[in-house]
Amino acid sequence: MSLVIVGTVAFDAIETPFGKTDKIVGGAATFAGLSASYLYDKVKLVSVIGEDFGNNMEILTDRGIDVEGVEVIPGGKSFFWSGKYHNDMNSRDTLITELNVLADFDPKVPASYQDCEFLLLGNLTPQVQQSTLDRLKNTPKLVVLDTMNFWMDVALDDLKSVLKKVDVLTINDAEARQLAEEYSLVKAAKIIQEMGPKYLIIKKGEHGALLFGDGQVFSAPALPLADVFDPTGAGDAFAGGFIGYLAKVKSVNFNNMKNAVIYGSALASFCVEEFGTKRLQNLTQEDISLRLKQFIALAKFEISE
Amino acid sequence: MSLVIVGTVAFDAIETPFGKTDKIVGGAATFAGLSASYLYDKVKLVSVIGEDFGNNMEILTDRGIDVEGVEVIPGGKSFFWSGKYHNDMNSRDTLITELNVLADFDPKVPASYQDCEFLLLGNLTPQVQQSTLDRLKNTPKLVVLDTMNFWMDVALDDLKSVLKKVDVLTINDAEARQLAEEYSLVKAAKIIQEMGPKYLIIKKGEHGALLFGDGQVFSAPALPLADVFDPTGAGDAFAGGFIGYLAKVKSVNFNNMKNAVIYGSALASFCVEEFGTKRLQNLTQEDISLRLKQFIALAKFEISE
Repeated sequence: MSLVIVGTVAFDAIETPFGKTDKIVGGAATFAGLSASYLYDKVKLVSVIGEDFGNNMEILTDRGIDVEGVEVIPGGKSFFWSGKYHNDMNSRDTLITELNVLADFDPKVPASYQDCEFLLLGNLTPQVQQSTLDRLKNTPKLVVLDTMNFWMDVALDDLKSVLKKVDVLTINDAEARQLAEEYSLVKAAKIIQEMGPKYLIIKKGEHGALLFGDGQVFSAPALPLADVFDPTGAGDAFAGGFIGYLAKVKSVNFNNMKNAVIYGSALASFCVEEFGTKRLQNLTQEDISLRLKQFIALAKFEISE
Repeated sequence: MSLVIVGTVAFDAIETPFGKTDKIVGGAATFAGLSASYLYDKVKLVSVIGEDFGNNMEILTDRGIDVEGVEVIPGGKSFFWSGKYHNDMNSRDTLITELNVLADFDPKVPASYQDCEFLLLGNLTPQVQQSTLDRLKNTPKLVVLDTMNFWMDVALDDLKSVLKKVDVLTINDAEARQLAEEYSLVKAAKIIQEMGPKYLIIKKGEHGALLFGDGQVFSAPALPLADVFDPTGAGDAFAGGFIGYLAKVKSVNFNNMKNAVIYGSALASFCVEEFGTKRLQNLTQEDISLRLKQFIALAKFEISE
């Protein structure tokens, strides 16, 4: 029984209105893995890094994350992304993308990962997402796929192909509209569910998230924050918290998925409080418990007629 | 004991991706009054119309709304607004604004309105909002003010002056940022609360609403709708439902305000289902009760730790 996450483990350089970083550790699998590690103790990553990653792997192993499936390419350079956020923090410009070892990434799934019951196909090329799924001998109990508009632009057929094998898709509202070619999110959700995923989560950043499935809809709030320091990785932290919670409770149904969305939102709300992975490296169970109480207070009302 | 609403009673001509209307009845006080009339039975309007309004007043009186304070200017023409919504339904262009009788509007508060306990200063010039407040002999139990960016652009000092006398302000997120000159909504809320209103409601359209006050925050979802037919009046219907609920329950506290936000959201969700006032003219208590159940299902989750 384990939770396997495939995605990037990488370096980022980030500029926001609050400051600027040199190369720091980032990557979809990094954020998702750290986030999931607070909810479930058998988190296993599949990724690729260069020799330049050095002892940064400790950020993951310190949280008990299994990195046997993270291939280190001798002499290689790790994937590097650099971006600058605009003042509204909702839009950003990519300054640099160096694929490096990611260009030829052929995901390795170690024998010890074949106990995978929960699989997160983190944001990455759909081909690599597909290969990872193919290399698992047993169909996982739950497959969650996170992606972004870039893959819709350059690899739509591959994305649609892997979507057929997926239980839950997480994308943002603009991406849902793009994928479905439909403006109404309610109609877009129906169209996307016909592509494969029984459940669709639409991430709306500061506006929260919508979960569609089983003929129901759930609207999760986002915690209003005085400062959003760095949004990088928030979507990955959300996905990691979401699947981490389901791996913990083991039972996949709409009510548990609603809770999973709240856990994902709570972990994402920590992620943006500091640059990079900083806040996600040192959470306590008490931090998480207090944050969940804030979410409960935020959304609760009692109407008696 | 009554709920007094000041605002426009007017004609609109609307174009959306779903169709186009000739002159139909609109106006902030119209939408707010209709909405409130489903929750409270002593709704009284203050407004001004031209002789051309004719028997359209029946739309209001059929719902039991008191129109003694709606002045009819002999030979005058009613305020007319025409607008066209873009495909996303979140932005619109104003095509025509004819102030007509609104240009010289001096609000009349009939003696029979002096029992006002709940006052909604609907979207209108801040001077008229102020005059209406001044002409009430007793300070109402609750004063709610709705406004928009236009008045921040052309009458900011007047707006700030009336805000000092107001308990609740309802504006959208862009307007909150403009008024506070601060991007973070959490910080903007604090700044606006220092201008006068103890409570601030930030209306986010399809993303729901935030209520700030008493050191707490509440996030209300918006109902995801397959089709938004015509957004005109949704903000007014929200404000009317909000204050109508509080007038009904009479007790003003944060828990009741949370419920009031949900009632306002429910009424607004009906408003957008048809052009103009059409849907708000013929609701049943069962329609409203079913809609509230949808809101409850939409937002409810149960986390047990």
